Amino acid sequence: MTASSGSKVPVTEQNRVRRARERGRYDRAFINETLDRSILGHLGYLDAGVPVVTPTVIWRQGEAVYWHGARATRYMKCSVGADVCLTVTHLDALVLARSAFHHSANYRSVMLFGRSEAVTEPTAKETALKTMIEHLYPGRWDQLRPMTDGEFEGTQVARLGIDSASAKVRTGPPVDDEDDYAQPIWAGVVPLRTSFEAAEADPRNLPSLLAPSHAENIGDRF
Amino acid sequence: MTASSGSKVPVTEQNRVRRARERGRYDRAFINETLDRSILGHLGYLDAGVPVVTPTVIWRQGEAVYWHGARATRYMKCSVGADVCLTVTHLDALVLARSAFHHSANYRSVMLFGRSEAVTEPTAKETALKTMIEHLYPGRWDQLRPMTDGEFEGTQVARLGIDSASAKVRTGPPVDDEDDYAQPIWAGVVPLRTSFEAAEADPRNLPSLLAPSHAENIGDRF
Repeated sequence: MTASSGSKVPVTEQNRVRRARERGRYDRAFINETLDRSILGHLGYLDAGVPVVTPTVIWRQGEAVYWHGARATRYMKCSVGADVCLTVTHLDALVLARSAFHHSANYRSVMLFGRSEAVTEPTAKETALKTMIEHLYPGRWDQLRPMTDGEFEGTQVARLGIDSASAKVRTGPPVDDEDDYAQPIWAGVVPLRTSFEAAEADPRNLPSLLAPSHAENIGDRF
Repeated sequence: MTASSGSKVPVTEQNRVRRARERGRYDRAFINETLDRSILGHLGYLDAGVPVVTPTVIWRQGEAVYWHGARATRYMKCSVGADVCLTVTHLDALVLARSAFHHSANYRSVMLFGRSEAVTEPTAKETALKTMIEHLYPGRWDQLRPMTDGEFEGTQVARLGIDSASAKVRTGPPVDDEDDYAQPIWAGVVPLRTSFEAAEADPRNLPSLLAPSHAENIGDRF
């Protein structure tokens, strides 16, 4: 919970949820929680005027979302200091209705718009990389072989403020046309769950190393 | 399997996998299988020059991927007859290495580029909508209340050829710097699995309706 978690992002023409407006949410607490339960985002940017969508690990720090990559990639060259759209989606259930038209899905999604920026100041950049690892694996950063200068220099970190943002949510059973409820057609929802399985040790691990709890209990956090 | 499933898509500057080239795949059989195991794609398009990424249900017919939506939406207005990028991603495992730098993820992803087109011919459009339902729920289409003219007219279907396409895959344990294997740091992978839970009947179902097998066994197909 941040100090701003009771607040809402401003609603503009860009981030206003237009279709199925009742599903739109603009409160930062919900947006933040949805982001924090995401490992991957899909990042949209332009390369020579053509849209490109790249899946990437994302994490939140305060009122911004971060990603990283090798400095030399198209992906980082085009997605830093540029207008981007970052979308995360949790598919929670398939929704089977009595007509094809009312089939749907239950989901939570967040879309962020804006101009991204590079995180270049060394302390901020190291904090960001540490936060990424700690978000996924609490306690791991200090157990790792420290980053080399070459690794640090070759990695770029980018940030997008959570400003022009919206969440969209659908929950519950199908909503059919009233007349269709009399049809002898099974309707309902089929929930999906993403779960983490038991950690599998690298065959090259030194003998007697045990899997740390941050590798065994990931599922509780996402 | 289509007649072309032994073939490859042409590799161009647009779809060539540049980073981690050894992970790139261009064979249609693998691209098709990855698409067929996807429910959602993330579709990138431009709205007034700004990239937007929308999650949407996708399905494949032959050598094209399809999506649909309400004709009146920004999403359909901007993503039909336009240059788009459609990306699907399966996150298969988290990969924990001995250095922060070599942490990674196992995944299968497909990126498609090109100019989309509207599917307007009525028979082709109905076939596409039926294929969407049957892809998710085999045998369901003929059990549903038929589409009305208004539903059919208000729904738009779009298609993108699988031409400028690439898949990218990572599998296996972490790949660490050779010296780091001597570090007493647990490394390995944590697999993720998306599973479908038991179907939940709509409380408004007529009595004695049983969940059809297409709602009970979805997980075998994705």
